[in-house]
Order: sequence, then C-alpha cells, then structure tokens
Amino acid sequence: MATRTVDLRSDSVTKPTEAMKAAMAAAEVDDDVLGTDPTAFRLESEVARMLGKEAGLFVPSTTMSNLVSVLVHCDIRGSEAILGDSSHIHIYENGGISTIGGVHPRPVKNNEDGTMDIDLIEAAIRDPRGELVYPTTRLICLESPHGSTGGRCLPVEYIDRVGELAKKHGLKLHIDGARIFNASVALGVPLDRLVQAADSVSACLSKGVGAPVGTVIVGSKTFIAKARRLRKTLGGGMRQLGFICAAALVALQENLGKLENDHKHAKILAEGLNQIKGLRVNVAAVETNIVIFDIVEGLEITAEKLSKLLAEHGVFVMPRGPSRMRMVLHHQISSSDVQYTLSCFQQVFSGLQEENGN
Amino acid sequence: MATRTVDLRSDSVTKPTEAMKAAMAAAEVDDDVLGTDPTAFRLESEVARMLGKEAGLFVPSTTMSNLVSVLVHCDIRGSEAILGDSSHIHIYENGGISTIGGVHPRPVKNNEDGTMDIDLIEAAIRDPRGELVYPTTRLICLESPHGSTGGRCLPVEYIDRVGELAKKHGLKLHIDGARIFNASVALGVPLDRLVQAADSVSACLSKGVGAPVGTVIVGSKTFIAKARRLRKTLGGGMRQLGFICAAALVALQENLGKLENDHKHAKILAEGLNQIKGLRVNVAAVETNIVIFDIVEGLEITAEKLSKLLAEHGVFVMPRGPSRMRMVLHHQISSSDVQYTLSCFQQVFSGLQEENGN
Amino acid sequence: MATRTVDLRSDSVTKPTEAMKAAMAAAEVDDDVLGTDPTAFRLESEVARMLGKEAGLFVPSTTMSNLVSVLVHCDIRGSEAILGDSSHIHIYENGGISTIGGVHPRPVKNNEDGTMDIDLIEAAIRDPRGELVYPTTRLICLESPHGSTGGRCLPVEYIDRVGELAKKHGLKLHIDGARIFNASVALGVPLDRLVQAADSVSACLSKGVGAPVGTVIVGSKTFIAKARRLRKTLGGGMRQLGFICAAALVALQENLGKLENDHKHAKILAEGLNQIKGLRVNVAAVETNIVIFDIVEGLEITAEKLSKLLAEHGVFVMPRGPSRMRMVLHHQISSSDVQYTLSCFQQVFSGLQEENGN
Amino acid sequence: MATRTVDLRSDSVTKPTEAMKAAMAAAEVDDDVLGTDPTAFRLESEVARMLGKEAGLFVPSTTMSNLVSVLVHCDIRGSEAILGDSSHIHIYENGGISTIGGVHPRPVKNNEDGTMDIDLIEAAIRDPRGELVYPTTRLICLESPHGSTGGRCLPVEYIDRVGELAKKHGLKLHIDGARIFNASVALGVPLDRLVQAADSVSACLSKGVGAPVGTVIVGSKTFIAKARRLRKTLGGGMRQLGFICAAALVALQENLGKLENDHKHAKILAEGLNQIKGLRVNVAAVETNIVIFDIVEGLEITAEKLSKLLAEHGVFVMPRGPSRMRMVLHHQISSSDVQYTLSCFQQVFSGLQEENGN
Repeated sequence: MATRTVDLRSDSVTKPTEAMKAAMAAAEVDDDVLGTDPTAFRLESEVARMLGKEAGLFVPSTTMSNLVSVLVHCDIRGSEAILGDSSHIHIYENGGISTIGGVHPRPVKNNEDGTMDIDLIEAAIRDPRGELVYPTTRLICLESPHGSTGGRCLPVEYIDRVGELAKKHGLKLHIDGARIFNASVALGVPLDRLVQAADSVSACLSKGVGAPVGTVIVGSKTFIAKARRLRKTLGGGMRQLGFICAAALVALQENLGKLENDHKHAKILAEGLNQIKGLRVNVAAVETNIVIFDIVEGLEITAEKLSKLLAEHGVFVMPRGPSRMRMVLHHQISSSDVQYTLSCFQQVFSGLQEENGN
Repeated sequence: MATRTVDLRSDSVTKPTEAMKAAMAAAEVDDDVLGTDPTAFRLESEVARMLGKEAGLFVPSTTMSNLVSVLVHCDIRGSEAILGDSSHIHIYENGGISTIGGVHPRPVKNNEDGTMDIDLIEAAIRDPRGELVYPTTRLICLESPHGSTGGRCLPVEYIDRVGELAKKHGLKLHIDGARIFNASVALGVPLDRLVQAADSVSACLSKGVGAPVGTVIVGSKTFIAKARRLRKTLGGGMRQLGFICAAALVALQENLGKLENDHKHAKILAEGLNQIKGLRVNVAAVETNIVIFDIVEGLEITAEKLSKLLAEHGVFVMPRGPSRMRMVLHHQISSSDVQYTLSCFQQVFSGLQEENGN
Repeated sequence: MATRTVDLRSDSVTKPTEAMKAAMAAAEVDDDVLGTDPTAFRLESEVARMLGKEAGLFVPSTTMSNLVSVLVHCDIRGSEAILGDSSHIHIYENGGISTIGGVHPRPVKNNEDGTMDIDLIEAAIRDPRGELVYPTTRLICLESPHGSTGGRCLPVEYIDRVGELAKKHGLKLHIDGARIFNASVALGVPLDRLVQAADSVSACLSKGVGAPVGTVIVGSKTFIAKARRLRKTLGGGMRQLGFICAAALVALQENLGKLENDHKHAKILAEGLNQIKGLRVNVAAVETNIVIFDIVEGLEITAEKLSKLLAEHGVFVMPRGPSRMRMVLHHQISSSDVQYTLSCFQQVFSGLQEENGN
Repeated sequence: MATRTVDLRSDSVTKPTEAMKAAMAAAEVDDDVLGTDPTAFRLESEVARMLGKEAGLFVPSTTMSNLVSVLVHCDIRGSEAILGDSSHIHIYENGGISTIGGVHPRPVKNNEDGTMDIDLIEAAIRDPRGELVYPTTRLICLESPHGSTGGRCLPVEYIDRVGELAKKHGLKLHIDGARIFNASVALGVPLDRLVQAADSVSACLSKGVGAPVGTVIVGSKTFIAKARRLRKTLGGGMRQLGFICAAALVALQENLGKLENDHKHAKILAEGLNQIKGLRVNVAAVETNIVIFDIVEGLEITAEKLSKLLAEHGVFVMPRGPSRMRMVLHHQISSSDVQYTLSCFQQVFSGLQEENGN
C-alpha cells in the first residue's frame, strides 16, 4: 500500500480547501431556481466581469455549458456548428449537440496546436444560396487550451481572426474554455482580451481553478437569459446554489495565482519523463498543465498496465489509448509530488527493463 | 420593513442547517464524474434502499430526474409517454421530453385528486397493430403527491393498479415523486411499499426533506447505468459532489420526522384562511404540505397584489394565476410562523374591506 | 367471390380516371427538385389561388403537409403547438411533430363537433412571463372537417374567432384540411373565405378530390419558401413531379362538383344503417362524406368480423375500434353502390340474428 | 434562342418516355398507404431481388431513402454514424440525420476515389467502454459511386472489407447508392454481389435509370418494416403509388442497358473538354456518367458566367463552385449531343480568348 497519493488523473480531482469550506458554511443563500440566490449572482457577475462579458450563468459542468451555449446560438431547426474534429464537444460530450439538440456538427481538422486553418473554416461555412440542400451555419466553436492536443493555447490573434470571420458571415463564436484561466496565464494575455471576440465562453471552475463543482457561461444579457431558460429545461437549475458558488469564489481568489506553478510542474514532469527510456513526450507542446506521453513501440506494456503499476505507488494517471497516457497538474500537486512521481516512473521502468531481459 | 420573514413560496427555499454545514465540511469527496465519490455513492444507495430499488443516481434537480427517467424508458425514436394533463412534467418542465428528447406526450385528464382514470389510461395505450400511424406507448408517468392539484397523494392501491396495467401492456411506470416522502408520511405507507410498482422514481431532496440541492433517481441497476450516461450527456455530472450529498444525508436524518408537522401546519393554515371572508380553500384537499387557495370573485384584488401586501409583512407566497395562490410548508416554518401568517392575512383583508367601502 | 366491389375504406382509394391518365401522358415536366417543373408550379399556384393564399407547395401526403407546416411555424427549439386531443396530427401521425420535430403538443379537448372551446384554447396558451418553466406557444392547429368525429365541419365564424385569438397572442393558425374541399361544399362557404384566418392549410388532393397522390400546403411566400426547404430535408422533393400534378389538376376539374353528391350518399347510407337493428349511427353528425357507426352492445360480433363478412360481398369498410366502423364516400361510389351496400348489411345482419337464435 | 437543348445539369432531368406513359396508364393501382398497391409491391420486390436483399420500399427521393435508413439503423437515442466528410449525406441533405433524426455524424476523410481509409474508419468507432462520454457507433455509411468526387466507384473488395469491419464491431453498413446501377456496370460486378456486405442500400431510380420519380430502399424484412413506419412518419407514404412505380419498372427495362453508353459519352466529353485551353479535367477519374471540370486560374470567367454563356447555346450545366462545373450524362443525351456540347464549349472559349486580347 502506497504511503502517498499523487492524483494526476485530471485537474478536476482537487479537494475543497478549509477556506472553501468556511465560505460554504458562511454563504448567504436562497432559491436560485426562483432567481434569488445572492451568492450565485455574485459569482456569475464576477466571472462575467473577468471575461469582459455582460452576464454569467452557473451550470453544473462544462458539458452543460457547451451544450447550452451551442443550443442557444443554434436555436432554429436546421442549424450547423463548425468545430474541431478532435474538440471536446465533438468527441467527449456524447454527441449531445446532435442527439439532444438536433444541431448538425461540421468538424474541421484540428492542427496539432489546436487551431483549425482559417481557410478551412471559411470553406466549411455554408453558402446561404444553397439552403435548399444545406443546413444553415450559425456557429463556430473554438477550444482553448485544446485538451486532446495536450492543452495548447490558441493565440489571441488567432481567436480575433476567427471572430472577424464569424462576424463577416453573421455567425456566432463560442469558446470552450474548460481551462481558459490557464490559457490566459500561459499566454500572458488578460482573460477579457483573450476572449474578446467570443459571443460566449464556457469558463470551468472545477478544473485548474480548483472549485469543487461548476462552470460559468458568460455572454450578453440576452444570451444568458436564453441560457438560463435552457438550463432549466435540461434540469441544471439548483436550489441553494450559493454555497457551491461561495466555494468557487474562494477558489478564484486562492488558486488563479498558482496556475503558473502548475505549468512549471508540467514542464518539469514532461522533461523528466522524456529522459526515461521507453517514453516519448513532446515537451515543446506542454504549454499549460497537461502532459500527454506515449509508451514507445517495442516496449511490451500497455497504458492500462502502466497506470496500474503506478497506482501501486499511489500515483494515479489516466490512460488515453492503448499506449498513450495523460497527467494533469493542479494546485494540490507540489514540487515534491512531481519529483516523487518521476522517481516512481523510473522505478517502474527500470523494473520493466529487467523483466525485458537483462 | 417587516421584522420577521415567513417564506412560504415553496418547500425548496429552506436554508442549510448547522449540521448540514458541518457534514459538508467533513465530507469525504472525490471526482464523481470519474465515478469515485464515496459520499455520493452513499447517498444514492441510501435513497435507493429507502425506496426499495436496486440503485440510485444523484441529479441536480427533479426536472433532470424526470427528463432522464422519461428519456431512458423511451430511448427508441417514436416513443409515447402517457402522463397527466396537469402533471408537472407536462406543464412545468418546458416541454423538455419533446423539445429535448423527442418523446411524444399523451396527456390523460387528471382528476382533482391527481389520479387519471384507469380506463382512460388503458384507452390511451396504443394498439401495436396500428404502429404504421401510431407512436409506440412505452411509459406511464404518475405524480404523487400531485403538485398542481394541491399535493394530494395517490393511494398505494391506485399505484399498484397502474403498475399492473403497465406490466400487462409491457410498459414502464415512472413516478414523479418530487414530494414522495410527504406522500409516504401522509398515507402511512412505507416508501418502498408505496412505489413498489414503479420502475423508476424521482425522489427530490431539496423540497420537504430540506437538502440544499438535488434529487435522486432510483430504479434497477440497468436503468441507473443508462441514466448515468444520459446525466453526463445533459451535463448533470458534477465533480466533488460528495459535499452536496453529505448535506442531503443529514437532511434525511433531521427532517423526515418533521414532515408530519408540516402537514399539520398546512391544515391549520388552510382552516384559518377559510375563515377569512374573501378567501376560499378546499380544506379537505390539503393532504400534505401545500395549501392552494382562491380569492373569491367580487373582491377587487389580484393574487399578485395580495402577495405584495403580504410581503410588506415579511410573508412570502406565490401567485398561481390571477386569483389563485399557493403556500408550501417546510421544516423552517414554526407553529408561531403559521399563526403570524394568519394574522397578517386577517390584517390585510380587514384593510381591504375598509377600502371596499365601510 | 363477390361480383362487385364497393370500396368504402377511405376516399383515398379512388383510381385515376382516363382523363387523368391522358393528362399525365401529356404533361409538360421538368426536375422539380431543381425548381423548374412547370406543371407542379401550375398546380401549386392554382390551389393557392383557390384557398386565397400567396403560394403553394406539393407534398406526397397530408402527413408531410401537416408535419412541415407545424415545424415551419415552430422552427425555434422549445415551441409548443395547441391541437385537438382527437386530431389527426395528435393521434394518427406517429407523433411526428415531437418524435421528428421536437415540438411539444398541448392537446385541448375536442368536442363532438370537432371544435375546441375557445376559452380552453386561450387557457392553454402559455404566459410568456412563465417562460422559465413553460415552452413557448407558437401555433394553434384546427382540423376541418374533423376526421375522428366523423367529418364534421368547423363553421367559418369559429375559425375566424380562433384566428383572432391567435393574432391577439402572436400565434400562427394552421388548418389540417385533409378534406377542406368537402367542408367548403358542406358549409356553402367559398374555400378562400373559409380559411381566411389561417396562416397555412393542408389541402389534400388524394382524398375526396380524387387525385392519385398528393397534398398542397398553402400559405405566404415566406412560409412556403421555408416549407420547400424542409420538404427537401424530409426527402419529399420529387423529380418529374409534373405528371403527378397533371392528374391532380384534372381531379380538381372533374370531381369538385361531385362532392355534394358524396355527402348525399353518406346521408343515405347513414339513415339506412340506422334502420338496421344492431347498428347505431348519429345521422345528424354526418355532414360530409364520412359515416361512422357502432355495433350496439349485446350483439356478439366485432367490427373486424363484420368487415370480413362484408368483404365476402365485395363491400370494404374499415374497423375503427372493437365495435366501431367507418365508411367514406367518394366519386367512384354510385347511388347504386350505396343501395347495394345497404342490402349487403341487411343480409349480413339478418343472418346474424338467425345465428343469435331468432 | 438555341435550336437545341442538351440538359447536362443532372441525370435526374430525364423526361418520361412513351413506354413509361403507357405503363402508367395501364398500371394496376391501389392505396399503397393501406398497403395494397400491387404495382408498388412489384417494383419493390424487383429492386430487392436485383440487389440481393429480402425486401424493398419505395420512397419519393434518395434523400428520404438515406434519412430513413440512417434513422432506422440508429433508432436509439445517442447513436453515431460514421460517414465520408464529402458524402452526400453529410454535405447535401440539410444535415437531416441530426436536425431531424438526432443522429450524431462522425465524418471521416474521403479520399479522391471516394473511399475512406479502413484504419481511419476503425479509429472512429467508439470504444463501448467509454460510453459515459461517447455516443454509440451504430452505422457506417458508404457512397458509391461517390458523387462529389466525380462518380468514382468503390471496388467490391473495399465494400466487403468495410462490411467485415462493421460486422466485427456489431455495426450496420448502409450504402447510398444514388447511382449504384452505374457502379455495377462500370465495375462489371453484379449488383447483388456489389452490395452483398450492406445491410441497406438506397437505389435511386430517377437518376441514370431514368424513372421520373423515386428511390427504393432495400434490406432485410425487419429493416423494411421499420423503414415503412418511418416513411409514414416523415409523410412519404403515397396513395395510388402504382402508376409511378409502373414507370420505374419500364425505366429499369429500357435504360439499364444504356448506362454503359452514358459512361462512354462521359469519357468522350471529358477528353474533349481537356483539349480546351482554359479547362482542366481529371479524365482518369471519370468512371461513370459524371464529368467534373475546373476553369483554370488566370481565366477571367466564373463557373456561373460560363454556364450562362452555354445556356445561350441550349447547353445546360451546373456550377459547383466559383470555378468548378459538373455535367451528368443520361439516356437522353446522344453521341451527337456530346459533339454539339463540345463544339459549343470551343465556340465559347475561342470567343473568350479573343476578348482576352488576341
């Protein structure tokens, strides 16, 4: 049995801190479904302010945030949304925008840095003159940092250009910002500037920010009013929401300053793993708090087996394919945890090589 | 400015108690989306046990609980669900089962006691031989206590008979039990016996039970596995869910014993209001914690105006139409609050009669 | 084997006449999906003119006509349509408006004459202030003649009043006019006047009018443009459509004048059946070309058995329940066919009574 | 005004022949919605036999055929279908499978020959273990000949391999065979052998086959029964369908033998156009009856302008982009029409070059 636990499965695994618990206990709450919870309103306003939008809405998860955003922008039957072919919305959200929302997705190839080529996006926009056989393009979705490509951040100039393209064609722009706070820190661009071109943003608070639960959608007042109604339809309205929001307000205060540290830890981890014979990491691609690495071919070990061996040491990581793994840093992983993790990997791999025939 | 607040808008307005806050702070939590939060699992198991079903699933609201349940039972395109024409699902949930789930509702007339005539239900079941033009009936939904008719409880014999009918035709039975704990107490029938015939039940914890947030769906293991997946699709999965569930576990311990008291308070309130010239209450219909009353014709005051006058005294009630109002009792309304409320009504109405020409 | 065939199953069973075949052969056609079939355009314009609307669109069936109309009027997610609880759309169209279109139906009780009480309709319209929990009412659907109640016609004054109600609340009005030509004849009200208040009408040509295939939707140009697109989405676009439309143009010329005769035949049939001991017909309710009748209780014969006995005589009727049957008159049923039918019934029933022991 | 018309916009533009008209006039018909039209049944059986499947169903268009097929295979909420990113279903059918059917499309890159790499298809199949966040893959769709890449045919070995892959993963295989008869002829593989691996096929009769209207879906009896029901839901049921089917039966007899000729004409046309300075055709890619060609850069003429100039000569072609055009051969285009068309192109282009300054 391991004496130490280092949980790198995701940045969604952080535990509430004492300050969060105190805030929850002290929170002024009311029935948010009736629209009268003051703490929920305070959090929503604060996140909206940070991202430079008019209004915010708390939802239980980023999946709901993205679903609600896409469905509000595409509220007319026959809508199409352009999104990345490896985006979280397209791959990891049960196809909800179609299966629940009837929105037709039009995936465009994601590059390794999470961008889609601007001219490919433009080519995917439907010509309204062809509406007899085409759905109507109404939305472009970006994701930054882009999760499946390892947390790489879209440059603000890129987002601006996509925003201009959207405007030119009368489309809306949504940003899946599951880790948008990390992107702002990594790029050194203020949050509100970074998402200036977007009509809506999902800002997750229960990943790097460290809140126990929740995501805030931000956008115009009109958009948020429609989103509030759709949240009710989906069943995302909650009663004494304020105490959850109180924890999130503390998380914003406590942890935003620590994100830079998480990024440093990710770099150290990536470089360390890359030293291990049998693993391959694209160190240059580690821009935020995610480290994706591959077990090199020839080594007779699967990602699943490796994660089990590490778990014996108290180190928890997530397989992402037969030979691909993912680790995510967060404020409850210390420098010492990072060193411990690297040493566990070394131990496991030296053991492997012995087995493999020395 | 009122010196006292009596919030009778709904039983969803209760504030977390000190014991709940303590439990939240002490809760053992983990990432429930990854399926590893022990406190969430404990709550789900406990509610499932109480209702005599195999498994449970926490969702943010009863709206989501009903939506998920209907959609899981009606997972094949072309399904129809039979439900009451004044049921919460048909009237107050944004039409989500159709607009989000593509399920065709087949409303059957609700009687004043919340039942639908068994023969009307049977007549509404589609003959499979007509499937070329008919949708396929897959589900019957009951609601007990029945909200829009004032919280009246379906007798266990009635539920059993509907269950037999469902079985005979190969249908599922879902119970919207937003206040099912109240029904069990009012009827003197154990919870598990009461819902024995049901394939799924929505058991709300943030109404009379007094938890700050949440509802548990219960049913078979297979059903709950499908429900868990759909919860994710809708975005109802939450991360460190355990601390919310910890509060709910306390609520179950603290407040179930108090429901009987709420029902007594409702009776007293109903009888008191019925004494007031200008109001009409069907006292006999008050079976649980809801009091619906009407302003009699001729009195020149709307429900909206009346609610404003009462609010000046710190008494909050909900208009339910031009001349209809609703009050809901809960564990944070004391006997003294009930008396105070009645005295406020008397004051307001004596004032009204003076205005009206004495 | 019967020497004679009298097909009363529906008015949709008529065979193309020689004139129709000649018109089909001579029709000028082109590719209607490319929008260039002149004969389709001629039919659509002609029907639009007759019903006093700007434009028309040919679709394969009244089911598609109703589906397209409801979906165009309710093109925003979260819409609700008010319709009769025994209307064809609600009962006999597979629930398509929900299961395919995501529209929430709000059925209102149909009276025996096919109307819904105006105040019940108004009560069913959702208050926009409740939009957090309500779907948005966008449409009222009427059906005239009303099929399931035996082809009774909505008076023009009634339609006008519903139209005013719709306008007052910003709603659209659709009329399912599967037999609207019969209604116009029966009421003695010109078609365009009869549907003046409607925003869209389904005008079926393959029922009483006697065309082999098709229905024309009529409405404003904007509405029809949207309907054309949705017809394509559903797959209702057809290539050399003109020859089908040519037959329909002939049908309009040949058969409109014969509808009055069909109604007379229906009356004669109803009165004759009512003379037969063992059958019950509401003769007064026979306003157009439909005769619905019941086998009286006590008689040990089902509708299905009766239809088989009649079929041995070459008379084909449709069971509509365990003891209810329907017959529909059309231009290929002569006075002599009606007399023959009555004599077959008499024969069958005298046989029955012998069996039953007289 | 042109003295001659050569309509190359599509192979869907053919006019009914005298034999078809005679067959329509002579057709034995009944009400197909009631399931009793003998000629419809004869056509459906014949096409099913030709394609080696158990049963067939006539629908008004290939769009409906594809929509119905995808929806029947994906009848459970939460389904995903793998299809080509330039396939007709994904690009030219209004996104109906999502916007009407709630099916999540998972596009895979189409190669220039219309195939998708087998390993890319396999990679796109969702791992059932990830069902908490993944939709369920239920279907693979192929298209042959592949329209947007110029009518190229999938080899039977390729289809077989995709079929094996589908079977291995418990998926269904649908083939959009809008021009499947052309593929069979071009490949020299019998129809039933060619689509042997498919669970369903859309076989269009109103393109190269030359019927005025319609497509037959083929598959197992169970599949077709479900398809028939869904056809009714969509409104694709038609009454005296037999006379339309009679024309299609003649078309099958008259025109299948002429497809080879159409392919030869396409080759001649392609080679001829390729000789014209200013046009570029991939002659090798012309496998069936479609010729796609591009106006070379530098030439100051758009596809739209070119189509107008040709129309003055009575030659009708379809622009497919700013500088791309398409022509489709069919049985009503003679060798002489092909020569005339080429001469018109030459005339137009020599005119252009003069304008451009020689």
